[in-house]
Amino acid sequence: MASEMQAQAGAQFRLPQVGIGTDIHAFSADESRELWLGGLKWEDSGPGLEGHSDADVVAHAACNALFSAAGLGDLGQHFGTGRPEWSGASGVTLLTEAARIVRAAGFEIGNIAVQVVGLRPKIGKRRDEAQKVLSAAAGAPVALSAATSDGLGFTGRGEGLAAIATALVVRV
Amino acid sequence: MASEMQAQAGAQFRLPQVGIGTDIHAFSADESRELWLGGLKWEDSGPGLEGHSDADVVAHAACNALFSAAGLGDLGQHFGTGRPEWSGASGVTLLTEAARIVRAAGFEIGNIAVQVVGLRPKIGKRRDEAQKVLSAAAGAPVALSAATSDGLGFTGRGEGLAAIATALVVRV
Amino acid sequence: MASEMQAQAGAQFRLPQVGIGTDIHAFSADESRELWLGGLKWEDSGPGLEGHSDADVVAHAACNALFSAAGLGDLGQHFGTGRPEWSGASGVTLLTEAARIVRAAGFEIGNIAVQVVGLRPKIGKRRDEAQKVLSAAAGAPVALSAATSDGLGFTGRGEGLAAIATALVVRV
Ligand SMILES: [Zn+2]
Ligand SMILES: [Zn+2]
Ligand SMILES: [Zn+2]
Repeated sequence: MASEMQAQAGAQFRLPQVGIGTDIHAFSADESRELWLGGLKWEDSGPGLEGHSDADVVAHAACNALFSAAGLGDLGQHFGTGRPEWSGASGVTLLTEAARIVRAAGFEIGNIAVQVVGLRPKIGKRRDEAQKVLSAAAGAPVALSAATSDGLGFTGRGEGLAAIATALVVRV
Repeated sequence: MASEMQAQAGAQFRLPQVGIGTDIHAFSADESRELWLGGLKWEDSGPGLEGHSDADVVAHAACNALFSAAGLGDLGQHFGTGRPEWSGASGVTLLTEAARIVRAAGFEIGNIAVQVVGLRPKIGKRRDEAQKVLSAAAGAPVALSAATSDGLGFTGRGEGLAAIATALVVRV
Repeated sequence: MASEMQAQAGAQFRLPQVGIGTDIHAFSADESRELWLGGLKWEDSGPGLEGHSDADVVAHAACNALFSAAGLGDLGQHFGTGRPEWSGASGVTLLTEAARIVRAAGFEIGNIAVQVVGLRPKIGKRRDEAQKVLSAAAGAPVALSAATSDGLGFTGRGEGLAAIATALVVRV
């Protein structure tokens, strides 16, 4: 019994692994460009972000943090120019696939946390909605928060958005 | 006995959650503005930071990381313009309240770690003092470290300070 | 038996600690300056980074994250101008020493994860090689990933590289 419990415990005692991920995209000069962030389309929040696919910096940073925690590279490696089948895929689609890859490599996903830095959109009013979409994609809790940069740097001048994320996974 | 231990173990085996938080403030042009950072007032280190309250980027980033780890939003949501009762509150007061909120939501706080990026003040000589004040506020270990940006960006030009933090919490 | 197992369990149940670290260096104007990153020398990837020693932002950010997780200060405290014996030491040497210091203080190192942000070099093709060198230095898994900043900020203009890292340690 004791050895069985130790075996069980041994499996569960395994140290989790942490990861870090970032993403940055510039706001588009094209007024008609849709703004996608945190898996949501934001109306009346100004033009969207430039970049491949929907340029969802929140979802992309979350992918990077997940891959980082599992030691599995980054967004560019899995979904970049060498993988044209992912060209144009939404941030939520990429996060869903990133979580699948991480699980297929033998990890359980504990949680992901993302903070977006920039002037717009106002995250607060749709935080719960975004967290639900992102968490469903990852199959694990995803927390979304926001901060500004007091007018400093490209985020302060409204030139773009930066997102930074961390994730915790454990090998099962 | 075994099942009781497993029950205990089950409670403790729970995966912790990680979070990420940032904060940025510009240095004030007002030479008389006090500089508050890491819960301490810094004399003879140049003018302070602009912003609501004491603009303590270290304490604010720590709050953001705590909320992020617990999936409880961010500084703006809890202490922003919609909550005038916190207007002007010190960074240490906000960190104390953030820790209370996180615990009230059912989490134990493992630790918080903050790195401040910028030219001044010199953290090293008062690191222990700051860590004591911040740890007392959070009721958990808070590590404070510093880095520079080699003259690059707004931190390198001495226009302001950036802080980035992570935190680990576990649901109890 | 139960109490012995609880004692063992107690030791292992200890919450891990997380840390955060950054580093930034400017690219050199000196075309002959060697580029060192992630413990590797990069040929045909343009001039190297300015700074003390090899200016390996990846290794330096990893050191900062390790010290941060253990609450043991930062790179500047351990290897800065007050410690001339480390002047000119390579990033890998510093990471090896940082890991030794953290273990000597009573911690086991779970993992380290670093993301480098900038235009060059292309990490992907030598990721495994870099991860092996860094992991050997730390005596624990080090994940290396990369991101760009869509032309924004000093990393987007190719003025330098930024690295951000996280680490997980546990007191033994
Ligand atoms: Zn992206
Ligand atoms: Zn602030
Ligand atoms: Zn450095």
